[in-house]
Amino acid sequence: MKFGIVARRDREEALKLAYRVYDFLKVNNYEVYVDEEAYIHFPHFSSEDVLSLKKMDVDMIIAIGGDGTVLRVEHNTSKDIPILAVNMGTLGFLAEIEPAETFFAISRILEGDYFIDERMKIRVFVEDVSIPDALNDVVILTSIPGKVTHLKYYVDGELAEDIRADGLIISTPTGSTAYALSAGGPLVDPRLHAILLVPLAPVALTARPLVVPDCSSIEIEVLTEREIVLTVDGQFYTQLPSNLKIRVEKSPRKTKFVRFSERIYPKYTLKIKKKF
Amino acid sequence: MKFGIVARRDREEALKLAYRVYDFLKVNNYEVYVDEEAYIHFPHFSSEDVLSLKKMDVDMIIAIGGDGTVLRVEHNTSKDIPILAVNMGTLGFLAEIEPAETFFAISRILEGDYFIDERMKIRVFVEDVSIPDALNDVVILTSIPGKVTHLKYYVDGELAEDIRADGLIISTPTGSTAYALSAGGPLVDPRLHAILLVPLAPVALTARPLVVPDCSSIEIEVLTEREIVLTVDGQFYTQLPSNLKIRVEKSPRKTKFVRFSERIYPKYTLKIKKKF
Amino acid sequence: MKFGIVARRDREEALKLAYRVYDFLKVNNYEVYVDEEAYIHFPHFSSEDVLSLKKMDVDMIIAIGGDGTVLRVEHNTSKDIPILAVNMGTLGFLAEIEPAETFFAISRILEGDYFIDERMKIRVFVEDVSIPDALNDVVILTSIPGKVTHLKYYVDGELAEDIRADGLIISTPTGSTAYALSAGGPLVDPRLHAILLVPLAPVALTARPLVVPDCSSIEIEVLTEREIVLTVDGQFYTQLPSNLKIRVEKSPRKTKFVRFSERIYPKYTLKIKKKF
Amino acid sequence: MKFGIVARRDREEALKLAYRVYDFLKVNNYEVYVDEEAYIHFPHFSSEDVLSLKKMDVDMIIAIGGDGTVLRVEHNTSKDIPILAVNMGTLGFLAEIEPAETFFAISRILEGDYFIDERMKIRVFVEDVSIPDALNDVVILTSIPGKVTHLKYYVDGELAEDIRADGLIISTPTGSTAYALSAGGPLVDPRLHAILLVPLAPVALTARPLVVPDCSSIEIEVLTEREIVLTVDGQFYTQLPSNLKIRVEKSPRKTKFVRFSERIYPKYTLKIKKKF
Repeated sequence: MKFGIVARRDREEALKLAYRVYDFLKVNNYEVYVDEEAYIHFPHFSSEDVLSLKKMDVDMIIAIGGDGTVLRVEHNTSKDIPILAVNMGTLGFLAEIEPAETFFAISRILEGDYFIDERMKIRVFVEDVSIPDALNDVVILTSIPGKVTHLKYYVDGELAEDIRADGLIISTPTGSTAYALSAGGPLVDPRLHAILLVPLAPVALTARPLVVPDCSSIEIEVLTEREIVLTVDGQFYTQLPSNLKIRVEKSPRKTKFVRFSERIYPKYTLKIKKKF
Repeated sequence: MKFGIVARRDREEALKLAYRVYDFLKVNNYEVYVDEEAYIHFPHFSSEDVLSLKKMDVDMIIAIGGDGTVLRVEHNTSKDIPILAVNMGTLGFLAEIEPAETFFAISRILEGDYFIDERMKIRVFVEDVSIPDALNDVVILTSIPGKVTHLKYYVDGELAEDIRADGLIISTPTGSTAYALSAGGPLVDPRLHAILLVPLAPVALTARPLVVPDCSSIEIEVLTEREIVLTVDGQFYTQLPSNLKIRVEKSPRKTKFVRFSERIYPKYTLKIKKKF
Repeated sequence: MKFGIVARRDREEALKLAYRVYDFLKVNNYEVYVDEEAYIHFPHFSSEDVLSLKKMDVDMIIAIGGDGTVLRVEHNTSKDIPILAVNMGTLGFLAEIEPAETFFAISRILEGDYFIDERMKIRVFVEDVSIPDALNDVVILTSIPGKVTHLKYYVDGELAEDIRADGLIISTPTGSTAYALSAGGPLVDPRLHAILLVPLAPVALTARPLVVPDCSSIEIEVLTEREIVLTVDGQFYTQLPSNLKIRVEKSPRKTKFVRFSERIYPKYTLKIKKKF
Repeated sequence: MKFGIVARRDREEALKLAYRVYDFLKVNNYEVYVDEEAYIHFPHFSSEDVLSLKKMDVDMIIAIGGDGTVLRVEHNTSKDIPILAVNMGTLGFLAEIEPAETFFAISRILEGDYFIDERMKIRVFVEDVSIPDALNDVVILTSIPGKVTHLKYYVDGELAEDIRADGLIISTPTGSTAYALSAGGPLVDPRLHAILLVPLAPVALTARPLVVPDCSSIEIEVLTEREIVLTVDGQFYTQLPSNLKIRVEKSPRKTKFVRFSERIYPKYTLKIKKKF
């Protein structure tokens, strides 16, 4: 089994834990690679084990950090490598374990005692050009904060809504606990084959969150005169001209999380109570 | 092809249109039956064609009225008979056509030029005893308006939420435009295999609508000391003692609507803009 | 200074603390009266000091319990007697102190080191007959849980809204943290001279909470065919026929709370984070 | 009586109506001035009657356009000149009359048959430097759409909330029908002496709209590392560094609208039903 290690670059505990995991796996004769970003901030790893995320071709990635770290792994690896997410963030919606549980978790992994939780992702095409897949959400936003955009969205070719709003959040079930929730969207069970469309601060009170099957083809027409901003998982940003079409559909790729229990609840619903 | 005719009993236009439809089908030598409730309020039908909904074993039911009329058909027929819903209500979320289109619709039906839109239903078990299936929603409510109930709900055996609220709405996608919407729930595409759980005026601001796969087994534990009220589609009411368990799951039965287009949007989303 | 003592009847700690306060004040030669309800559940008080709330004519009432206890005092005393509220409830929105602070608080009171926080109340007239004033809210509710009522409400004689909803909450700023909040209303600073009108699960998405000046005369027309339920502070319940008019306005009476700080925040906003 | 005329520059009907009003008042020997922006787009006015809004010292301004036109008058005149707002926008929340009523309205004004409706405004101080007053709202926004800001807000020196959100809307009652409504705020009667604080897409579900007395001093601490954007009435934009303090309070100035009725309802509440 080959491992990759990624850590939040701005927290020393994360980098130190990454080193301890690295050391443990090396001592036990596993092949281990370290993200070059971690190496830059913590140059104690052997330089021959350092790789960019893009080049990491391992069996499992241990990601130590917050949801941002997991999303960075997602956006930079080219294969669907299972991720063990260790929570060194504030909330850690995507994380499976706390730092203190790391070595216990690794020993269960080495024994094969774990599950893979596959999460669907969404793919965006801007005028038919694809950009990175989203695990949480794709958001179309006004480029001038506070000025409404005018958007129409179509589900399977039919007009579902015509909104004036700060933007539109197109979210996976996984993303339903993130930005979509702040905008008034529902919680969606991660097992559901669905995509959420949640208007952000719409002018019309009748514009409501909409949940559609994940096999739907969603098209968004940007009618506003101004440029818009498109973000993917709050990681990838791009400014786009107006009068264009954006298409969203289920990605053929999935994110694979290492889990030690198949239980979804109450963890899933209780975490949102801790948001601050 | 055998037809059944049902009409809203409190609107003469509905009963008159029902008679015209009955007459037209008789003249064209179709076998037609009329709901006995319609006959009581409009005794011009031949008495030998009068039947109770329970006994109606026809190929299609033409229901003239509002959503209440459709739900009455649903709650009283014992087979999944396709329904052509003619809107003589205020909004007619379930209706396919307006009264003026009735005969044009019937001619298309006679030519076989229509679709069947199957909608999932939910089944409720109160301490393992089943009650009528819901096309829209099953609602657990405080029996004293304004006094909170204490409920816990479980998805596939795991605690999803513990709420103090006026009640809990368990809704199908079809019901997402009804009571669940008033309580802050999302719109759900009728094709999605989902069940909605929407708390009604919860004490905690962190209690949010939840959308789960329709294959989930949902259990609700009523912890409040007071009796509760359970309603199905706003049609069937029952008062229940506290400290009991209610189980909800997808019904093996479906509601079949006659449609003349496979398009869902924009009709589905635009209707909610007309709510008043 | 004459004191009255009231305690939550269903919690022994509340009754025991009430007895300790009673004993302390007696020993220090203050005139003290005890609510007869407390005496029934804890018969250690001298029977000559027992009085009904109605007859209590004291300078201050020490209320040990939850918000329900405070509201019971409010609904049963005939004068605006300052209340020191000791929290033995779950949240205690109205409470000033925790049980452990009781004797420290009493010593400050005896030294005159406290403030009086006056809270506005609302008065309801059903067909011009007044019922008990509300410190939190007056709620007009459907008598059949889950069936909408049809209400029109007028502000200073002009139609403000026409709703189909489970009910309407008419709330003081004090009540904005209670039922009105669950129904989607805003938090209102207790110093604001305002009345809130919050529809409960309205059919129309455009029916929004409305905040009006407390000098407004509010009239509600009940148009539904069914009876309605009217509650005051969740304490007083009455069933009323339909087709009647209810008038709401600021009461000439106020509720007076003993406070040890004039600060409103962050206590006011932080308490809602603890709701569960 | 001296008049000023202002018109929406991008709609010819507005400019034409402005000219007809100008001509009518000239013919009737009134002193009339025209906004130089209108003159640039419609150069038929006598050049000697053209003035910048800044220099307009008249008794009444007739503003033909949408809410944007009224807000432009507000932001550019230096005195509290009464405004007759003629609706040539989409919704015209601030407008009193429709174009067809213009000459009838002017004749009532010339007869003195009208009311002045005074609306409160809010003043903003950024590190003690004042910027233009807001009739609707002052909005503090993330400068990167989709990335949360971290804000603390204080009411009269006490911490009211600590939020992570897209921004914070500080609104007058007049602004309660604008951006604040889209963000989930209540409707506030324009007569209420209040300021609204409405978080925009807050991370925590417990962050709720707050209504405080208009005599409150509100301080906002921007804790985010990124720059923020501050907008006034969606007209004035400024980018500000982080780690600064913004103070908001009632302005000593007011906006004066010409009205022909003292009735507020149902116009006020019904307009929000037409939002799209």
